[in-house]
Parts: sequence; structure tokens; C-alpha cells
Amino acid sequence: MSDKTIENSIKIDAAGTVSDSGNILDNVNLPTDLRQLSIDKLPAVCQALRDRIINTLSTNPGHFASSMGAVELTVALHYVYNTPYDKIVWDVGHQAYSHKLLTGRKDRFDTLRKQGGLSGFPNPAESEYDTFIAGHASNSISAALGMAIAARLTPEEEKRRTVAVIGDASISGGLAFEGLNNASCNDNNLLIILNDNDMSIDDNVGALHRYLSRISTSARYNDMRYRAYNFLKRHNFVGDKGRGMLIRFTNAVKSLISKRQNIFDGLNIRYFGPIDGHDVENLVKVLREIKDMDGPRLLHLCTVKGKGFAPAEANPSVWHAPGTFDPKTGVRPSSGSNKPKPLKWQDVFGRSLVELAESHPDIVGVTAAMPSGTSMNCMLERFPKRTFDVGISEGHAVTFSGGLAAAGKHPFVAIYSSFLQRAYDNIIHDVSIQHLPVTFCIDRAGVVGDDGVTHHGLFDMAYLAVIPGMTVGSPMDESSLRNMMYTSLSYNGPIAIRYPRGNAFNPVWQTPFEQIEIGRSRRLLDGVSGGIAVMTIGPVGHDVAQLAEELASEGIYIAHYDMMWLKPLDTKAIEAAASRYAAVLTVEDGTVRGGLGSMITEHLASIGSHLPVVKLGTPADQWVHHGSVSQLRRDCGYDAEGIKNAIRNLHNTLAK
Amino acid sequence: MSDKTIENSIKIDAAGTVSDSGNILDNVNLPTDLRQLSIDKLPAVCQALRDRIINTLSTNPGHFASSMGAVELTVALHYVYNTPYDKIVWDVGHQAYSHKLLTGRKDRFDTLRKQGGLSGFPNPAESEYDTFIAGHASNSISAALGMAIAARLTPEEEKRRTVAVIGDASISGGLAFEGLNNASCNDNNLLIILNDNDMSIDDNVGALHRYLSRISTSARYNDMRYRAYNFLKRHNFVGDKGRGMLIRFTNAVKSLISKRQNIFDGLNIRYFGPIDGHDVENLVKVLREIKDMDGPRLLHLCTVKGKGFAPAEANPSVWHAPGTFDPKTGVRPSSGSNKPKPLKWQDVFGRSLVELAESHPDIVGVTAAMPSGTSMNCMLERFPKRTFDVGISEGHAVTFSGGLAAAGKHPFVAIYSSFLQRAYDNIIHDVSIQHLPVTFCIDRAGVVGDDGVTHHGLFDMAYLAVIPGMTVGSPMDESSLRNMMYTSLSYNGPIAIRYPRGNAFNPVWQTPFEQIEIGRSRRLLDGVSGGIAVMTIGPVGHDVAQLAEELASEGIYIAHYDMMWLKPLDTKAIEAAASRYAAVLTVEDGTVRGGLGSMITEHLASIGSHLPVVKLGTPADQWVHHGSVSQLRRDCGYDAEGIKNAIRNLHNTLAK
Repeated sequence: MSDKTIENSIKIDAAGTVSDSGNILDNVNLPTDLRQLSIDKLPAVCQALRDRIINTLSTNPGHFASSMGAVELTVALHYVYNTPYDKIVWDVGHQAYSHKLLTGRKDRFDTLRKQGGLSGFPNPAESEYDTFIAGHASNSISAALGMAIAARLTPEEEKRRTVAVIGDASISGGLAFEGLNNASCNDNNLLIILNDNDMSIDDNVGALHRYLSRISTSARYNDMRYRAYNFLKRHNFVGDKGRGMLIRFTNAVKSLISKRQNIFDGLNIRYFGPIDGHDVENLVKVLREIKDMDGPRLLHLCTVKGKGFAPAEANPSVWHAPGTFDPKTGVRPSSGSNKPKPLKWQDVFGRSLVELAESHPDIVGVTAAMPSGTSMNCMLERFPKRTFDVGISEGHAVTFSGGLAAAGKHPFVAIYSSFLQRAYDNIIHDVSIQHLPVTFCIDRAGVVGDDGVTHHGLFDMAYLAVIPGMTVGSPMDESSLRNMMYTSLSYNGPIAIRYPRGNAFNPVWQTPFEQIEIGRSRRLLDGVSGGIAVMTIGPVGHDVAQLAEELASEGIYIAHYDMMWLKPLDTKAIEAAASRYAAVLTVEDGTVRGGLGSMITEHLASIGSHLPVVKLGTPADQWVHHGSVSQLRRDCGYDAEGIKNAIRNLHNTLAK
Repeated sequence: MSDKTIENSIKIDAAGTVSDSGNILDNVNLPTDLRQLSIDKLPAVCQALRDRIINTLSTNPGHFASSMGAVELTVALHYVYNTPYDKIVWDVGHQAYSHKLLTGRKDRFDTLRKQGGLSGFPNPAESEYDTFIAGHASNSISAALGMAIAARLTPEEEKRRTVAVIGDASISGGLAFEGLNNASCNDNNLLIILNDNDMSIDDNVGALHRYLSRISTSARYNDMRYRAYNFLKRHNFVGDKGRGMLIRFTNAVKSLISKRQNIFDGLNIRYFGPIDGHDVENLVKVLREIKDMDGPRLLHLCTVKGKGFAPAEANPSVWHAPGTFDPKTGVRPSSGSNKPKPLKWQDVFGRSLVELAESHPDIVGVTAAMPSGTSMNCMLERFPKRTFDVGISEGHAVTFSGGLAAAGKHPFVAIYSSFLQRAYDNIIHDVSIQHLPVTFCIDRAGVVGDDGVTHHGLFDMAYLAVIPGMTVGSPMDESSLRNMMYTSLSYNGPIAIRYPRGNAFNPVWQTPFEQIEIGRSRRLLDGVSGGIAVMTIGPVGHDVAQLAEELASEGIYIAHYDMMWLKPLDTKAIEAAASRYAAVLTVEDGTVRGGLGSMITEHLASIGSHLPVVKLGTPADQWVHHGSVSQLRRDCGYDAEGIKNAIRNLHNTLAK
């Protein structure tokens, strides 16, 4: 196929979808293959990558818009840099699908995010081209700085190059700032690429974001500055040693033109850009020019999230992870019948919060860049002045909530379980020591499925249980979630409510708010004396409630306690159970170390009870990888079948 | 006493010490008293506060240099602002002694940091003037922003003013950046005061620090800019609404003069300064001018750590917390006799690290602004290129270590236990998922004494134990610490070694390095069949070893296991103990929830053992406040007497 043929094969139709662009990728299995191509072939490679992403993700859902926006950047990086010897560190990694396609994983791309298949994020366990784990935002600069410095400390690796690729949302995280702040203090050649698509998953917020918008739009200044630099360099007025002078020069130019300052230069990170992140040939040229400079540098690219697929460009938030869609039209399947169906847990939270806020003017809402992911957008729409999207900054979100609470407000701060790990000290130091009334609404608690090892929320019960004065609950059903939220309003201290990703159970969820007793469980099934007591926390209790009948038909009559609260634990109920039943089975959606099973075991031991306890949950000391939620729960042994089998085994053991 | 007399009474002698400045403080018990004085009396108040701090701290050690540097600032704030209605949020709070003296706690100042006395840090439980907890750096902007926004949301409190006071070291923390980044996006009147003393506890590091040095020294620009603003304001060219224009104007002026940019203005935080933080009258004038402006602002003060006491000004690191000293001469008591005495734990770590680094070129050291506090300065002196002080940024310190490890180095990262909470997600996400070889050297693990509730390291065993693949050990003696460090070099994954504040035991500590088996305990005393097995982790084992003889004289023969490793737990030893002894007593310097006692209890339950377990440590669900380490351990029941009594009680119970 001639080049002309390849170019002709790339066609964007009116709806913005693309036809298949042929087989230029067939001969590109690794970056070394890519580097054989002449530079004018790269646009075709980009188009072929886009086609592949569109076609694959239309049936196998994934993170679409970010990866579409980073195609040219990925191609240019692997074209210019000697990967995997040179190190590229991706931040979050939503954008890394082209990277996977170009680094030997093309044939397995259909397995993306499926159990046993490719991870949705870069993962060193998967490929030597994945240099560092990615999943939680803002870690790339710190990690890449470590690699860049390690290279400098190793005589034979001094020339190894290191690149961190970070988005404009991720760079607002405190960790990224700490990395930037440290980058200029050491001997290193780190290149930071700021992939600025003007978006977080939702709209981007924060002063730094506004700042980036301003410098991005001052193209005249930037263009002039970059030309000035090249001019000076060509004429040997400036080498790498003249860097300080150059920064002063370019800042002076800049100040005259834009009346704004450059934050990165202020931090002594040499700044280049912004340039068009979709002009792959120019990108290659720029990277070639700056790749061997010494010292930390930042290249600012402007990209379009969803680039090359019109529906995604038009609505990038929706297309962050759009589910399945028609690759030609971009039409996404409708949600099916009109009969009422269960809401997502996050929506039960979001809508209930609005209801409570209507009658409680002290309530405020806080989210860290996840208004749609946590459904805090319900509150944001209804009470925009009382709702705060603080950007990717979980630590700040929690300390800020502490400040709001110290001044008389009642914040509901909604954060995903695994991201809340970022705010552990803030929970302890800035909220719990002062026993401030903050309600932590922990979304995505338990296994989350496709996003895998970095995103499961397995540790929150364990790490929260050790904090003095912290209350931790998890609702089995929608009305319990509502009642816990309502009850938290009159509890004068920190309280965490955890609930999972996905849908709840009841089409009718809007039950009246009721004050409930904190630390009080519910016994849903009495079971029989000498039998088994199943103690659950959270929605897994729903499975137990459903399987009880089948077990009864086998002659196994279980008692079932919805414990509701991990802390304070309903020790009275446990003690009563100890005197009536012969064994306890605990079930929780999280690690069995330090959570419900541990707490019950320890309490029974403390009262001298010898009741055997069998614990179900995710295994201690083992990471859980990606797959569907049901697959993962089955593998961990706490899906409905796993629970039934555990009960049958325990029943048989007791019968012996 | 006339003003003249007061002034005459202030004398600084050649050594820089001060004579008593009389009784102007006698009539100042609260800020309302202060506000009755004319502005020209304020220097005398400052002098009297300094005298009081010098005299008190000379016999009752505390954080000296920071508090000395913040005297004028404190006086000016309480003079200008309507405290406690207006809110002042201190960061860290080392500098808050004058604040305590001015807010009704003068008479109790001698009880500072003593059990039952005043906390060494601001604490809302102590005074309504302490608006938020302080102890961990960088939280003030986020907390104060929450308060400022809460005021705006409350109709009758719209005019309430909020001030965050943050040091130049603390502002480099990611949390502070997240706060700054968010501050300009909301309707608030937050004033951030940057108390820039050009110091962390040790020398300050980082790009932002260098940046601050540069703008501080550009006095000509700043003076001109502030005058320009005042001129424009006086002539009504600019009101608060003209802020944008003004910023552009002043930036243009600045650019012309300094050729540098202002980072804060870039973040849309209006910047004022730098001004002399020791000219209290001018400070009052400036605060009066800017206090009622709208929108977030930052006032940059230049102060001198240790101001007013020459020895402290000359060596502020040493005088951060100098211990006792002669208030006239600044002479600190010598360390006594010359006979060899035990090193501090941190020094055993620091010196052993240098020894290992001599023969292991892959070793690198990382500290987050604590080179002297962790004794990482030993490594910094010997191998400056292989040692990294990354500033107050624990999250970055850990992710950066992950990057170093991913590129083939073996980082030893030394962080205080309670500060490591800041890096919890970094430990999980950026190190443990990839099972990277990072050795976490956790200093100040267990109760730390005078610094109190924010500084005890009680949770690390619990929060680390839930992380898959993490190894956790704690040495009972110096040679175990050395051997754990040595052994970590050949362990290809994350490993945490915790040790306490204070001195170890043996004058001869430099034993040869030995490879030890990870997860293997030591039985130090056999005890008797049917007796009690005492299982300890860490230096508390030393107490048990010492008290065994006394118990033996009472006919109680204990077995003693130095467990050494929390994870992996030596389950074989525990199982063997279960078949030989009649009860277990666990002792650990940390919370009894989730640590050694919990892990042993759970393991015994899992094998169906009914061995009773009694757990000693800090109580679950209760904060530990300040006092000496021995007082606190006594109160928690795990000093030597507490352990003996627990053993006796258990012995008596078994005998029944």
C-alpha cells in the first residue's frame, strides 16, 4: 500500500466517525518499528491508532476521550525517545491506550480491562514499557524525578532520559506540586509534558487551571519566546549553561506582552509552549530539540479530549468512559425500558443529600474533582454556593471540610475509597482529633471491577477503624444509606459511610428519613439455636438475605445480622449471638484484615468466647486485580455461591 | 510605670539576652486588654513576651526559635483583629507561644507541654482562641479557607475575618498548594500571612523557597508596588473591584524591575510584601490597610527565627527546640560525663545507614525536611549526592523513593510515624502495588511525649499491616535495628522498620551486620509449661527482659518472645506457644487495635486456639495527650509497673 493509499484510506465522515485506515499498524509492533518510519507517515499511524481505539472501545468499554487526545503525543514520544531504555511515566494512565498499542500489546488490546487481560492503566507487571504504576493522579513527576536522579547516580546510565506525562487536572494535586518544587533542586534531565486538555474528568477547577488557560491563549507571546530561544541557540548566544539568562530574557519578553508571569519559570522549571498537541510532526521536532537539554523542563501541549471523534470532542465528560457506542455514529445504547429501576448508590447519596440540604442550611457538599462520579453534581446544581469541587486534591478536600465544620457547617465530603487514602492524615489530624462533624461519604468502597488494583476500595474499614472517635457505617440498602446520612447530622463528630460502585436494589428508594441508633445492628433472620449466625456489613447483606431461603430448603437455618456499623461495633448483639449460635460467618466487601471479621473475632476473644469465626472478604495480603465485580467476588469467595458454600462447610463441620 | 520607664527597662546585653522588662503584661490577659494600649506600647509588649518566653523555656524546654520570631506578628494580629470572633489559624503552631500568652493562658504558661498543662501547639480543646488543631505542617490554608467560606455562607457572619499564618517551609507542602490553588476560586476574604524566616527546622529546600528568597530581596520592587497600590487606592483609581487591573499593573511594574514573576499573583492570590515582620507598628498599619479588602490575599513577612536572643539568631536549627539553657548567656548544659552512653535510636539508624552505604552504592537516603530529626544528616554529610532532603512533602518523599527504586536504587526513607500518615496512599499505590524495594525507617514510633496528640506514632503498625506485601518489623535493641536494615537490602520489596524517639540501651551498639530471617521471632525466656508467654515488639521488650527476674522472685516464670516482625507474623512460634503456655500477654508501643495484639489474637482464633490474650499498648479509641513518655506509658498501663501488674493479674487468674 503506497503512502498515498494510506492517506486516502483515512476519511472522517460527517458524524465524525472514521473508516478503517488500513494496515499501517500491522508492521508496527514495537517502538523500534515505529522509529523505522519516516516522519511523514506518523499522521497515518495516529489515525490508525484512533481507528483501533474507536473500534475496540465501541464494544469493550474503557477510558475513551483521554486516550483519543493523547495519540499524537504517544506516537511522538516513542518516535523520539529510545523506549524502553528511556523512561516514560504516565500520570493516571487514562490516556495510555495508544501507548499499549505501540508497545507489543496490540494483539491483546481486545482484552483491555477484562479479567486476565490488559490492565486499563500502565502497570510494570504487564510490560517493560510501563515504567511505573498509574491510577491515582499526580504521582508521575515525583516518580519520574526519582528515576531521572537514579540515572544520574549510575555512571553507565547518565544519558538515560526520563519523561513524565501529566494532565492539567492532575498537576493541580499537591503531590505534583511537591514534585515540581523538588525537581529543580537536583541534578536531573526530567522533561515534564503537561498534556493540557482543559478538562478534568469533569470541568477543571482551580487557580492553576485558570492560569494555564491564560498562558495557553497567549500564543503570540509563546510563539515569540520559543522562536527567540531557538534563534539564540542557533547563534550560540545561549547554551544550556545560559539557561538562567534565557529565562530572565524570555520572562521579560513575556511580561511585556502578556502582563502575566510564568509559574513554572518561577519554580525554576524551564517552560516551553504551549504548542498544538495534535500536530505530530511538529511535536517530533520540538521533542528532538529539547530532549537533550539538561535540567528540568516542562513542555506545555494543548490537546483536545476526544480528538478525532466528533461526539467525544463535543461532550468529553460523557465520553471520559462512555460505555459501548456505535463506532460510526457515536450513538450510545439507550438505557432500555422505562420501568423504574434501582438507582446507582452514588445517586441515592446525591439525591438524598439534596433533600437533606433543603431543610438543613448548614449542610455543604465537597468533592475532589468527581462531581459526576460521586453524584455530588446533584448538590452542585441545586445549591451551587454550598457545594465545592476543589479539584484533584483529596487532602485539601478533607482539611477544608474540617475548617468548614470548625466554623459551624456540616460538610458531606464524597470521595472514592481508594482515593481517600490520599487524605488519611487529614482525616486523623484535621478532623478526628478535633472530633469535628464531617460526614465522609465513601463511594466505590469494595471491589470496583475493571479499573483494577489501583482503584479497589479495600482498606477503608481497616484504616478508619483505628482512628479514635471515628464512626464507620455501611448501609445494606438505600433506606439505610439515607438514614445514616440523616443520623450523621445529629452526631457531633466524624462519621464515615461506605457504599459500593454500581446499582442498589430497590426501584423505590426514597423512604422517609429516620433517626437510627449509631452502633446498633439489625437481626434480619433469627436462625436456630446452635446454628450459624451470618454477620454482614454493607450491600453484601442483600446476597445473604436472598440465599437464606435456598439454604433453608437444605435444612440450614441461618441467623442474619446486618451489622450496619463497623464502629462502634454492636458488641451486645455479638455477645447475645455468642450465647445462642455455634459459629459466626462474617462477610464484608473489603480486606478481611482489620475490618468486620477482625473486629468481631477480637471482641469474641476479649469476652472469652470460643465461638469459631469464618471471615469472607478480599484476602489478606493479596492484591485484587481487574475483572468484573462478580468475577472478582467469585474469585475471592464472597459472591452468593461462595457464601453459600462457606455456610454449608461450616454447617457440616458443626454437625461432626 | 511610664512609657519611658518601660522603654528603659528593655535592655539587650552583649550576649543578646534580655533583662526583665517589667510588668506591662500584668495588665494584658486577653486580646481585648491589648487593644486598649496605644500602638507605641506594642514594642514593649513584644519585649515582655520575649522575656517571658526566654525565662520560661530556659527551664521548661519547648519550641524556642519559631516563637521568638513570631512575637510582633502575634501582637499585631491580636491588636488589629477582633479575636476570637475573627479567626486566626496557625500552621504547625511552633510559633504560637506569644499567642498563648496573650489569650488568657499566661498564668499557666509554666505548664507548657507538661502533662495536664498547656499543649505545645494550638488546640481548640484548650482555648476558643485556638481555632484549629496545629501540629502537622501545611494545613492552615485549607482549614482557614473552610472557615472563611463558612462565614460567607452565614448571613450574620459575613464580616468575620479569617487569617492563616503559615511558614515558608510549611507552604512548600502539597496540602498548602492545594489550599492556595483552591483559595482564589471561591468567594472569601482569607488573608494568608507567609511568615518567612528562611528556615525549616533545618535549612529550607525547594524551588519555592529559592523563589521566596528572590522576591524577598527585591525590596525595591516591592516597596514601589505597595506604594503604588496605596497611591491608587487613596486617589480612588482602584477599589477592590479594580483588583484585576491592579494586579496587571503591579505585575508590569514588577516585571520591569525584578525580571521575576510572582507565583501567588499567578494563582490569583493578591500578593503584598515582603515587609519586616519585626516592626510591629508598621505591621499593624499594613494589617489595618489590607484587613478589609475582599478576596484572598497573601502578606509576605520576613522574620528572623530566634529574633531577640542572639545565640538563637546565630544558630536557629539548634534553637528550634534547644532544651534547657541559661537565660542570660544562652549556654546549654553540657551532656555530662564522658563515659560512653547509649545513642539515640535515630543515631543508630543514621550511623548504620552510612556504614551500609559505604559498601552498597545503590543505597540512597530520603528525608522530608528532617535531616537532623531523623539523623539522615549523617548520610547527607557523607554522601551528599546520594541523599535527598525533599522538604516538607512526605507524599513526594515516598513516591520519589518509589521512582528511585523502580530505577534500581535502594532508598531508605526516614519519616516520623505520625507524619508518614501523610504518605499513606503513596506507600500503597506508588510503592507496595509494585512491590518496590524501599526501606521505610519510621522514627518517633510510639508515644513521643511532650509534643502530644498530633505527634504520637500510634497507628503505623495498624495501617501498614493491611497493605499486601508490606513487611513490618520493630527492633528491640540496636543490633536488631542494624540487622533489619541490613536484611532489608536483600529483601526485594517494601519493608518498614519502626523505632521510637529517645535513647537506645547499649553503649556498645556497633555490632556486625547479620542477615536475619524475616518473620522469625526470638524466644528470650523459656518460662514454664502452663505459664504466661509475654510477646513484645520493639524496645518495650527491653522492659520485659528487665522485669522478668523480679517476677521470678515472686514465683512467676514468664516466657518472653521478642516477636521482631509484625508482618509476616511468626505464626509457627505462636502456635508452639499455644500448645505450651496457658496465656499470652502482648505489649506494643502503639494502639492495641490492629497491631501485634490484634494479629496474635486473630491468628490464635484462626487455628481454634482458646488461649486467652491480654493486650497492652495505647488504648483503642482514645487519644493520648501530652506528658513525658514515662508518664504516658504509665497511664496507658504499659510501663514496667503496668506490665508487671498485668502479668501478676493474669497469673492469679490462671491460678484460680
